Amino acid sequence: MSLAAASAMSPVGAGRWAGGIAPGWDIVGAANGGYLLAMAARAAALASGRPDPVTVTAHYLAPGAPGPVTVDTEVVKAGKRFTTVSATLSDAAHPLVRILGSFGDLEESAGAERLEAGPPALPPVADCIPIEPTDTFPPPFMGRVELRLPPERASAWGGSGAPRVEGWFRLRDGEPIDTIALLVAVDAFPPTIFFTDLPVAWVPTMELTAHVRARPAAGWLRCAFTTRFITGGFLEEDGEVWDSGGRLVAQSRQLALLPRG
Amino acid sequence: MSLAAASAMSPVGAGRWAGGIAPGWDIVGAANGGYLLAMAARAAALASGRPDPVTVTAHYLAPGAPGPVTVDTEVVKAGKRFTTVSATLSDAAHPLVRILGSFGDLEESAGAERLEAGPPALPPVADCIPIEPTDTFPPPFMGRVELRLPPERASAWGGSGAPRVEGWFRLRDGEPIDTIALLVAVDAFPPTIFFTDLPVAWVPTMELTAHVRARPAAGWLRCAFTTRFITGGFLEEDGEVWDSGGRLVAQSRQLALLPRG
Repeated sequence: MSLAAASAMSPVGAGRWAGGIAPGWDIVGAANGGYLLAMAARAAALASGRPDPVTVTAHYLAPGAPGPVTVDTEVVKAGKRFTTVSATLSDAAHPLVRILGSFGDLEESAGAERLEAGPPALPPVADCIPIEPTDTFPPPFMGRVELRLPPERASAWGGSGAPRVEGWFRLRDGEPIDTIALLVAVDAFPPTIFFTDLPVAWVPTMELTAHVRARPAAGWLRCAFTTRFITGGFLEEDGEVWDSGGRLVAQSRQLALLPRG
Repeated sequence: MSLAAASAMSPVGAGRWAGGIAPGWDIVGAANGGYLLAMAARAAALASGRPDPVTVTAHYLAPGAPGPVTVDTEVVKAGKRFTTVSATLSDAAHPLVRILGSFGDLEESAGAERLEAGPPALPPVADCIPIEPTDTFPPPFMGRVELRLPPERASAWGGSGAPRVEGWFRLRDGEPIDTIALLVAVDAFPPTIFFTDLPVAWVPTMELTAHVRARPAAGWLRCAFTTRFITGGFLEEDGEVWDSGGRLVAQSRQLALLPRG
């Protein structure tokens, strides 16, 4: 099932939308956080009347399993350029994700351009290593997206190196990627600490913020994720997503909980 | 007036708190964003029954002027370790700031420590240059906080260098800094683009997310802010705050609007 189908939202009342968590988008039984964010953001974008999630923050409240969900939206402010929306994605029993986002139209964007860094250097897609899904780990979610790691990173998995990972991303079968789908890209890679000698375990995302700078050109995305500070029981993961035209299309940061040893 | 007094919140009903924007916390007539965030977060922390804003995001809706404000809070989820709260700070006419945060008790924090970088290297406080308030610019807000820039950075102001700024921060007269006050520190420095050859103008913050990792030790804080990507009409500002014990106490990222040329 495409992401477009798996994240579709239908209006079912004033500010309320209905959809479903599709099977196969999970990691160890819990639906991927970027996928849940994309669902909530799609409803929020519809509520805002604006297409692009310029900045959106998700707080994760409970794990999601396949089945029906609703999204309740509240338009906090409709401004001249941006509309700020709060939304809660819930299953039959609980709220799963709360988001706060400001939506706009990135076609209108313009201004000075000044970049202190470029996209990550990656070998060609064909020379990189795919992560294929299994029933356990790598998770079923890897059947919904396509990741390709540089051989150097793939061999560092489970090693004792730096907390970083980079690689290519696209949706299965090259499904087009809009600015909502970018929210999946920023949470699709294995956690950075899997490449260090820290214990490999579930690294739950507490909060994720994504900034979308531009609508991506067609093709594979270059992604890079790094962690600088593991302290106080928390770690951040900073992400960058670059499109096939070499343009920065999204930046992300998430706060995750370090597994308690 | 101390920050504690200027951000005090009194309960005035179910989930509602009252306070006031104090005079002198403004920048070109608009109350500082970190100060407004601290006020909203103080009410949200009270609503959560937990002291520390572990991760909090603010979306800025309208500028704030001195006068009474209310904060309406909604406890989204009270969990075992964290409580997620949404809050809206409003003046008599409009909502000014909407926040979404998860609050906890950082005394309970523990786990592996692994840092890929340390605090910024700064000359001693006494060798740095204070930014003193004026009626215009530097703004009155600089009378509420104390910033000291390294001579090298102070002389780069208005120059044509890299978009970064670092320096020392404390509240006036050494007022103690709790985890709520850290939210002022992450938005107190001049914008990074003031140190580049881009036009110097109002750089409105659209969204700011702060992660608080630990309660700061007493004393001056070392702060550093950098911008890597100015593109699409937006720029991010990434901040780090380190305490006098050399501990990372907060990380921040804001999305700001580039002045339209």
